[in-house]
Parts: sequence; structure tokens; C-alpha cells
Amino acid sequence: MVVLLRSNPNEKQLENLVHWLESRNIEVHPTVGASQTILGLIGDTSTLDIDLIRALDIVEDVVRIQEPYKNANRKFHPDDTVVTVGGKNSTPTKIGGGNFAMIAGPCSVESEAQICDVAAAVKTAGATMLRGGAFKPRTSPYAFQGMRAEGIRLLLEAQEKTGLPIVTEIMDADQLPLFEDVDMIQVGARNMQNFELLKKLGHTDKPILLKRGLSSTIEELLMSAEYIMAGGNQNVVLCERGIRTFETVTRNTLDIAAVPVLHGRTHLPVVIDPSHATGVARLVAPLSLAATAAGADGLIIEVHNDPAHALCDGPQSLTPDAFAALSKQVDALRGAMATV
Amino acid sequence: MVVLLRSNPNEKQLENLVHWLESRNIEVHPTVGASQTILGLIGDTSTLDIDLIRALDIVEDVVRIQEPYKNANRKFHPDDTVVTVGGKNSTPTKIGGGNFAMIAGPCSVESEAQICDVAAAVKTAGATMLRGGAFKPRTSPYAFQGMRAEGIRLLLEAQEKTGLPIVTEIMDADQLPLFEDVDMIQVGARNMQNFELLKKLGHTDKPILLKRGLSSTIEELLMSAEYIMAGGNQNVVLCERGIRTFETVTRNTLDIAAVPVLHGRTHLPVVIDPSHATGVARLVAPLSLAATAAGADGLIIEVHNDPAHALCDGPQSLTPDAFAALSKQVDALRGAMATV
Amino acid sequence: MVVLLRSNPNEKQLENLVHWLESRNIEVHPTVGASQTILGLIGDTSTLDIDLIRALDIVEDVVRIQEPYKNANRKFHPDDTVVTVGGKNSTPTKIGGGNFAMIAGPCSVESEAQICDVAAAVKTAGATMLRGGAFKPRTSPYAFQGMRAEGIRLLLEAQEKTGLPIVTEIMDADQLPLFEDVDMIQVGARNMQNFELLKKLGHTDKPILLKRGLSSTIEELLMSAEYIMAGGNQNVVLCERGIRTFETVTRNTLDIAAVPVLHGRTHLPVVIDPSHATGVARLVAPLSLAATAAGADGLIIEVHNDPAHALCDGPQSLTPDAFAALSKQVDALRGAMATV
Amino acid sequence: MVVLLRSNPNEKQLENLVHWLESRNIEVHPTVGASQTILGLIGDTSTLDIDLIRALDIVEDVVRIQEPYKNANRKFHPDDTVVTVGGKNSTPTKIGGGNFAMIAGPCSVESEAQICDVAAAVKTAGATMLRGGAFKPRTSPYAFQGMRAEGIRLLLEAQEKTGLPIVTEIMDADQLPLFEDVDMIQVGARNMQNFELLKKLGHTDKPILLKRGLSSTIEELLMSAEYIMAGGNQNVVLCERGIRTFETVTRNTLDIAAVPVLHGRTHLPVVIDPSHATGVARLVAPLSLAATAAGADGLIIEVHNDPAHALCDGPQSLTPDAFAALSKQVDALRGAMATV
Repeated sequence: MVVLLRSNPNEKQLENLVHWLESRNIEVHPTVGASQTILGLIGDTSTLDIDLIRALDIVEDVVRIQEPYKNANRKFHPDDTVVTVGGKNSTPTKIGGGNFAMIAGPCSVESEAQICDVAAAVKTAGATMLRGGAFKPRTSPYAFQGMRAEGIRLLLEAQEKTGLPIVTEIMDADQLPLFEDVDMIQVGARNMQNFELLKKLGHTDKPILLKRGLSSTIEELLMSAEYIMAGGNQNVVLCERGIRTFETVTRNTLDIAAVPVLHGRTHLPVVIDPSHATGVARLVAPLSLAATAAGADGLIIEVHNDPAHALCDGPQSLTPDAFAALSKQVDALRGAMATV
Repeated sequence: MVVLLRSNPNEKQLENLVHWLESRNIEVHPTVGASQTILGLIGDTSTLDIDLIRALDIVEDVVRIQEPYKNANRKFHPDDTVVTVGGKNSTPTKIGGGNFAMIAGPCSVESEAQICDVAAAVKTAGATMLRGGAFKPRTSPYAFQGMRAEGIRLLLEAQEKTGLPIVTEIMDADQLPLFEDVDMIQVGARNMQNFELLKKLGHTDKPILLKRGLSSTIEELLMSAEYIMAGGNQNVVLCERGIRTFETVTRNTLDIAAVPVLHGRTHLPVVIDPSHATGVARLVAPLSLAATAAGADGLIIEVHNDPAHALCDGPQSLTPDAFAALSKQVDALRGAMATV
Repeated sequence: MVVLLRSNPNEKQLENLVHWLESRNIEVHPTVGASQTILGLIGDTSTLDIDLIRALDIVEDVVRIQEPYKNANRKFHPDDTVVTVGGKNSTPTKIGGGNFAMIAGPCSVESEAQICDVAAAVKTAGATMLRGGAFKPRTSPYAFQGMRAEGIRLLLEAQEKTGLPIVTEIMDADQLPLFEDVDMIQVGARNMQNFELLKKLGHTDKPILLKRGLSSTIEELLMSAEYIMAGGNQNVVLCERGIRTFETVTRNTLDIAAVPVLHGRTHLPVVIDPSHATGVARLVAPLSLAATAAGADGLIIEVHNDPAHALCDGPQSLTPDAFAALSKQVDALRGAMATV
Repeated sequence: MVVLLRSNPNEKQLENLVHWLESRNIEVHPTVGASQTILGLIGDTSTLDIDLIRALDIVEDVVRIQEPYKNANRKFHPDDTVVTVGGKNSTPTKIGGGNFAMIAGPCSVESEAQICDVAAAVKTAGATMLRGGAFKPRTSPYAFQGMRAEGIRLLLEAQEKTGLPIVTEIMDADQLPLFEDVDMIQVGARNMQNFELLKKLGHTDKPILLKRGLSSTIEELLMSAEYIMAGGNQNVVLCERGIRTFETVTRNTLDIAAVPVLHGRTHLPVVIDPSHATGVARLVAPLSLAATAAGADGLIIEVHNDPAHALCDGPQSLTPDAFAALSKQVDALRGAMATV
């Protein structure tokens, strides 16, 4: 970290700052120029709050040279992380390092028939994991909140029948006991900075699918991954699912650049959720292909099983047939990319 | 709610839609025009997910005529809500309906001397409530996370010494037992859509200070208030604290229009946090005056007590003297506004 | 267009509204429901300002059923438009309807050697058109504003030597005479709503490359295309080049969904500018592949020729070798996509 | 400006950079630390493109110490600028340095009776200037584009009858001859970065009302002012009129903090346009009071004269009576603020 001082800084305040930094085991190396003095800080600066230092009267600006994340940082872990999901009651599958995850399933679990039928259909169509919501974060308290514990039970039935590892969202740490046999726990966009939940998930050994918040920066996403990893759990998969912008023609704006940007900064796998990013079924296929071409490590796609009655499926859901066709296109694209 | 059908809708799908709506006790009134059929829906449409209906093939668009919030809606509760805070171990104070809250205190509780000194200073300067963070949501897991339970204990000491009601942030429902003697519970911006927490707070009778999320719309803020109120707790105070935009010269962008917009839609009090909205102490006074002139029901302002050593106070904190001066200006402004 | 009236509308005001609409040759079809009266408007509603009607006391809401653009609207022109660029002093090339444009060249024209060398290099590497800035929109009045007329002259030399059609930006209609032999005129993001310029370009027969404004919606982009087309010039190619969001890790956020969204709404070709969208050379290749997979009709990419001295080339520029490699990858991807 | 080099920079590249900087009359002062070398740049760094330097392989980061604007910079011009508007065919009025502008009038000029009646009404109600659109920037080419030259003629009649100085928007430099007797020229939000227009206005001596673009940063606004001032015209008044964010309940989001932020950075007057910021008449009064309390140097407010027929007036327009009441409230507020 480099601190640029204002010209003629108050000496007492400068002394205070240096003492305070040294008390935190930071070495301070001043370099005095003609018009500007600069402090180079050596040590673990990740715990320093850059805003606090920048606020001091004697400070002109502060520049962070090192990223504030460590466990998630590719500089310290150059090799891609490969996260293995499932294996206890399901067929294990890998994400990252060249392993592509095809995660599919309905928005919400609605009944045994529904989730088991969709699971069978997406498995046939090429899915490597099953998704489905049991606990549903809904803007309105009057909207359907999901089947909750019963939804988890039905997901586990589908897991047993198909062998597909399952991923489903947690909304509060006190739901953790219900996730004992769930293969991967999803942290939704609204909880990306629910730090108490992240800390508790850091003490489990479950793979975590961490979705980017609607208005979270890429650095904030990595810091939230760091919360989980600092607790010991290194099995984190990041998910870009669209950010909130002024454009309303799609529900959110898919930040496709997040894929190569994240791959440059972290060794963790990155998957894309085109269904929630756009909210429009017609856009799922082109954005899935775009994500694949950009180098994503997987896709998470909403699939419903009965279009005629699927009033509770989102407008972003594909039919199993459309998913199967997309799955083939993704495979073809990955094949072409491997040869160039 | 009004559903605009596409021309020549599939009859089977239309029948399905009408049956599904009627099964939810919604009356459906079709009006058939030359080129367009429109369904008027009468009944409690607040539980309907507008996106799901809009997604149907036969639907062109859906327009919500009624706001989806009820308890928070001024249409059904035309009089301003007045929230009373404190009274058990503190001097009760009112917010809303002409009662102005002046909430002040440090960013974080750091020591007994610090919080008690600031409490005494802001009380003298005109504060009606004391704020201070015990549980701190921090982007980095390596940053100071607050004094937690010990911080609450110190706040209660300051409460006892000064009689000021205290407000402090909760980050997880399992911290609730510690908040027994806290006068008002703050839900921070990052937890505005932590729906499980909101539900649990809805079953308490504590006043709640609900901060708007960084990228939450005003309607989403009202829906989160509705989560609390649907559980029975009507003592909600809303807080605008800046939204995330492309402008980086201030930490966030204070949405000052939120004050009159919210006053039009809800009977709940609205306070403004100029400290977090801008992150710059120099801007706190002009934005506090602006908020007052816009009709806010109160302000929540960061004040620290020892600028020479206040490295851990935010760049947005005022000294007690600056706060006292601002407090007088706010009073003068409110006086002038009362006469016109 | 459908106007939803408030319950019990003032009769005099309603009469005024109906007369005013009829005076604009709009037929008004009221459908009176139990609790709501709705006016269906038939005729050319594209000239009506929806905000003005919505503002009336008697109006609850207004819903536009038809998009306000006509010439650009795929509903009225279902076939893809193919824009032919060049042919006068250059080899003609096509964009759209399956024809892919590979537009490359330096940020700014700097010298005859520079532009001619880059032109030759990108032609060899697979470019179908040459780009290069002569008039440069710069945030600072003190920054290099481009070689202006001399820059156009040098571009025409490169056009003559290589046969590549050239595209370059116009900043004011009084520069039009200089563009006589330019093959395609670019309207930059900052001028997307410079309506006087758009009108004047509508009276030329030059192909126009219209870039989306940093904060323009997709509908606004189409309305700006409509300005050009309404004047008679149907040769418009749209360009997504990133929008302004809260994320600062890339210069802008590439809205990749704009490709399929625009293809659904308009028959005009859509190209992607990954160089300006991100401002980072390392991200150009993955985003170019993503754009291709999403169905874009072309790419516009910054290429410089001399990395050792290229201080004035942007951080987003590729070397000719990197561009040649990317060009091959794009071809391979297009080949793979054609087979699935 | 300070350039932070990467560790072990390529020596040849470093030499190139230093030579290039020196060729631009920038002194380069290296300070070599243990792990980091830093270049301090002394001289006129305002012409350097920070992005270009940051892009070099050997550069870690660049920090600008000096703002890139000079004429507009309060550091070099500590006293408030007072802009005098009118005096030729109108009563002169001042803006800035304690002089408050109350600018009012209709959205568009529609007829002689309309503009003259509104002018008389707003003058009586306390306006110091008349606004009215002759050239109208409209998203749709099919919408009313304003009365253009005839609109200017009618504004000049209202100027003559009332003595009020007039301000109206220019959309293209070739309209300049029509503005000969206009007292102040408005540059609209969509043209804030129409640099060719700004340059030409810099060569006039007319006061310019420069509106902030919908997605322009405060620094970009100041740089656009700098374009005008660099040409010699120092009579620039800045106008905040709302920025584009994700919130749709108001048309734009008024960035109220822009008032004190701009006052800190520049000596130019700052006025607020609450009508366009929100698009809702009910919000104009509270936001006008907020702007006044925040220290704005004036307001620009839409007023129409005939609500019964004012179909073409925007939803944001006040009646003359509402404007008169607001004018009194603003005066009272300014009085109260002067005493504290």
C-alpha cells in the first residue's frame, strides 16, 4: 500500500499515523520527493481500512498495490481450483480447471413428480447437477416462500433417483441442519454480504455456490468468497447472475466480462446464470453460448417440465427439449474452442 | 391489476389462466375491444407474481394498479405513524408526524470512555438518540468486526448514564437476545433483503430502523418494511442512506427525492443518513439541511470525540462541536419551514 | 396504446383528452369495466408522448403496445438488413444477414506510416474494414483532439493502398464535406442523442455506424437509428460498446444481452466493440468470442502496430499478431456455430 | 501526478516513458523505495491521458494529484464567480456569490399568448429569468421538435414585454445566429459532451447554462465547462438535473450532493433543475427547498399557465400559483439560513 501525503503535513499527525501503522506490524518506508512525500507500507495491509487512512487531513490519497483477498487470490494460488461436488449420495462431478458444470432444474420445487421428472429430463439432456429452490427469497412477504424443509426432502428424492448432485439456496444459518445431505449450498445474490452466514458456511466443508449481489463489485464478490475461505472452506464456486443497471429491457445486465476478469484474479471456478440475468427464456441460449465462449466453467439454467401448466415457473425457464438442444450447442462450442 | 392479452390468444391457455386466477379468489373481468382483450383482476392481487403472468405466451403486458404493500401503504393508513423509541431504561422519544429525530454517535463502539463521552457530548448538542456500532458489517473478513456483545454492553452503559435511547445494528437473528434492552434495532443496508431476519424482527415489538439497500428500489424498501409489519410489528422507521450509482466522488448518491416520494406512499417515518451517503464529513452539514428542507423526520449522523486519535472513526464523522453547530442550523431551518 | 383511467374520471377532462387524441387522427375505443375504464388507442401512436398523457389527473397509467420505432422495427421488416459498405474507392463488404464484419485499426490516426502499416497488417490478419480516429472526442480540452482533416486524408491513403473500406467518427455536421470518400461514418457514444447531427446524416446515403450511448437504453438506441432512417438513410449498423454502471474494474460494462435483444426488435445489424467496452487488451479476445457466440454481426477492434512506442495507443489495443490469432478463433467459432 | 512502477520494470521501456514525458515538458522525479519505484511528475500534467500511462506494462498505477481542470478550478480562483445575465434588451440579473437565480417558464414555447402570459405570471411570482424551449431534444423523431426559430422570436417578445432575461437551449452550432439577442444559452444534458459545440460556445461571450449529462460524472461536467472556458468564455453556470440510476420511481435521481461537492471544486455557480430531475410536479417544491438548503445558487423550474389544456406541458410543471407559493418558501428558507 502506498500513502501519498499532502505537502507540509502536520508532523504530530504524521507521527501518530506512523506509530499506529507500526503497532499493526506494518513497516513504513518514507520516500521524500521534491514536492511530495510518499509512505510505502510493507506487511499485511489487508486488514487496513483504506477509507480511514484516506480520510486523514495529512493524506492526499492511498493506493492499494496488493489485492485485499488472499485465499481467493490467483497470485498466491496460480493453479485453477477444481471443486468436487457430490459423492456421498450422488455421482461426484467436478467444476473448474477444464471441468464444465451444467446445472439445471426448476426455479422452485413444487411437488415430488415435478422435481423428479425435471431431474430425469435434465439428466438425459446432459445436466451434471440438479438445481431447485426450497427456500425462496421473495420481494413480497405475501408471495410463495418455497416448500422449505419439504422442498429439501423432495430434492433429496430426486438426488437418490437420478444420482445427480443437488444445489439449493440457504437463507439463514439456522437452516444448516437441513442441508446435511445437500451436495452444494447456494448463497443467493441478496445474501452475498450476509457476513454472519458466510462465516458459518466457512466452518462447513460443503461446496458453496456464491452468487454475486445485484450491485456488488467484483472485488466485493471476492471479499465475500474470502469470508468463507478464511474459515477454512476452500470449496467456493463464484456465480455471475447479472447486475442492476439503468437498462430495464432485461431484468438485470449480465456482466460477461466478469468471467475473464475473475479468471485473472482468482483460481476459483466461475459459472454463469443466464436465466436470472435476463429473465427471458429466449435470451438464455445466446447468453449461455456467450458465457461458454468467454471461458465460463459452467452454467446454471432454469428448466421446467410442463409448459402448459407452468404458471409458477419463471419466464426465464426453458423446456427440457430446449435445454437439450442448448446442451448440444454448448458441447459443440467447447469442442471448437479446444482446437484453436 | 390489468392483464393485456395478445391478439388472438390461445383459448386453452386463456382458460387455464382464468381458472388459476379464480382459484386464488381473484375475480376476472374481461373487456373485449376491437383489437385487444383486457382482463381486469379484482381481489387481493398482492400475492400474484407479476413477472410470472407477464411471461405467459398469451400475455402482452401486465399493469399493477394497486401497490403490493398494505400495512405500509398510506392509502390504507392516511395518518402519519409516530414511532416511540425508548422508555424502559431511557427517556422516550418520538419519530414521525412532526417529531424530528436527531440520532448521533460514533461509527463503532470502541471503549467505555469513548461511547460515554460521545453520548454525553451529543446529548448536550441536541441529540435525541445515541447510535453506535457493536456488530459491524465489513467487506473484508480481516477488518475489525466490532466489539459485538461487549459493544452492546457499553452502549447500555451510555444509555444508563445519559438516558438517551440507543440504536444499533443486528446482523443475524441469533443475536436477538443481546438486544433485549436496546431501544431500537437497526437493519443495515446489506441485510435489507435478508428476509428470514426481517420475519423474525416482525415477531418482536422493538422499533426497527430499516436502511435502504445500496441498490434497492423504493418499492423494494417498502416491501421489506412490509415483511416486518406483516409479522405484527408496526414500529418501522425507514432510512435513506445513499444508493450505488456510477458517480464515485461521493461513496454513494443520496436519493433526496426518496423523502417526499416515501411520504407520498407510506405513513412510516423517514430519516436520512448523510454520513454514510457521502462518506465525507464536509458534506454532512449541507446534506442534513437539504434533508430537513425536503421534509425528513430525522437525521442519523456520525460523531466522534477525539479527532487527534480518531483513526478508526470514519472520514464522514463530525466533531461534537460541528454536530452542535449543525443541530442549531437544523432547528433554525425547521423553525423557518413551520412558518411558511 | 392503452390508457387506464382512474376511477370516476372528471368528465370534462376526459372529453378534452378524447378530442385532443382525435385531433391527432387517433381512434379512441373505450371499454368500460366494473371498476376501471380503459381507452384503446388505434392509429399512429408513435408521435404521442407517453409521459404527457400519463401525467394527466384522470390517467392511472399508459401502456404502449407498439414500439415507437417503425423503420427500425423487425415487425414491419422481418428480414435482416444487409448493409453494404465501400465500393467506390474500396472493395465492398457486407454486414448483417450472415455477413460478419471484422473492423480493425488504431484508436487514432497518427501518421501515414502508422495508419498504412496497421491497415496492411489487419488486412492480412482477416479484417474486412479499417477503423481509425481523425476527430477524437476527448474529455479534456487539453488532450490531443486528433489529426482532424489531415487524419481523414491519411485514412483515404490507407483505403487506396489496401482497398479496405474505412470507418471514422464525425463530431459535427459541418465536417460532412470531409467525409465524401469515407465509406462509413461513425456516430460516437457521446453523440448518440445529438439529434441535429442524426437528422443531417439521415439525408445522406452513407452507411452509419451508430454507437450506443454510455447510459442509453436499447429503446433509445433504436429511436436514434429511427432519426437517421426517418430521413431516408436505411444503412444503419448498431454498435454496443459498453454501458456505464457502478462496476469500475472495467471501463464500461459490455451489455452482451443487447445482441439477441436487438436482433429480436430490429432488422439492423449489430456489432460489438470489446475494446472500448472494457479498456483492457487482455479482455478483448474473450469478449470477442462471447459476442460472436451471442450472434453479433461483427466486431470493431483496436489494433496498434508498434507496442514499444505506442504510448498513444490505448490500453485496449491488440498487436496485429494478437488480432490475427483472435481472427482465426472467431472464424473457428463461427464455423462450429453454423453446424449446430 | 504520481506513477507507481511495477517491481523490476523493463529498463528500455522505463527510459522510453521518461523521454516521452520530458518531451512534453514534464519533469520526472523518481524516488526509489525498497520494493517500489515511484515517479513524481512536475509540470502541466493536465494534457496527459492517465489511462494511456496506466496501460503500460511497467506501470502499476497512476494517481492524479492535481485536478485536470484549471479555469474552472477553485484552487486557482478562490472567489465565487458571479455571472451577470441580460442587460442588452432585458433587466440584468446576477447568479452566484450570494445572488440567487429563480428561473421559470414552460417546457416548450407554444404560442405568443402562452409564453407572454407565463412570463408575466412568473415575473410577478418572483422569477428573475424566463426559460422556454424553442429547439427541443426529443427521443423520437416523430415527436414535436419545438417551434425552433419562431420559438426564439416569441421568447424575445416575452423578453421585451417583461424585461426578464431569457435562457433557451441550443442544439447545434449552426443555430447560433438565432441566439444573438438571447441572454443565456443552455447546453442540454444530451449535448454536455458535444465538444465541437462547446468549443464554439467558448468563442462567444454569452453566459452558458451547462447541464450535467444523465450519466456524466462531476469531473466530466467540470471538464466540459473547461472546454467553454478554455476558449475564453468564463460565464458558465453549472446545472445538476438528475442522473440516470436503477431507480425508476422518479425519472432521474437528483444528485443533491453535487451542490456542495461542486462548490468545493469550482468557483462557478450551481443551479438545480428539480422539474427534470424527478418528472413529477408534486416533488418540485420539496426538492427546490432541499436544493436551497444545500446551498444552490438558483433553481430552474417548469411553470405552465393553463392546466386545463396543458396537454403538452410536462407532468413536472407547476401552475403559476404553486410557483409563487414555492418562491415565498425559498425566500423564507434563504432568510433563515442567512441568520445561522
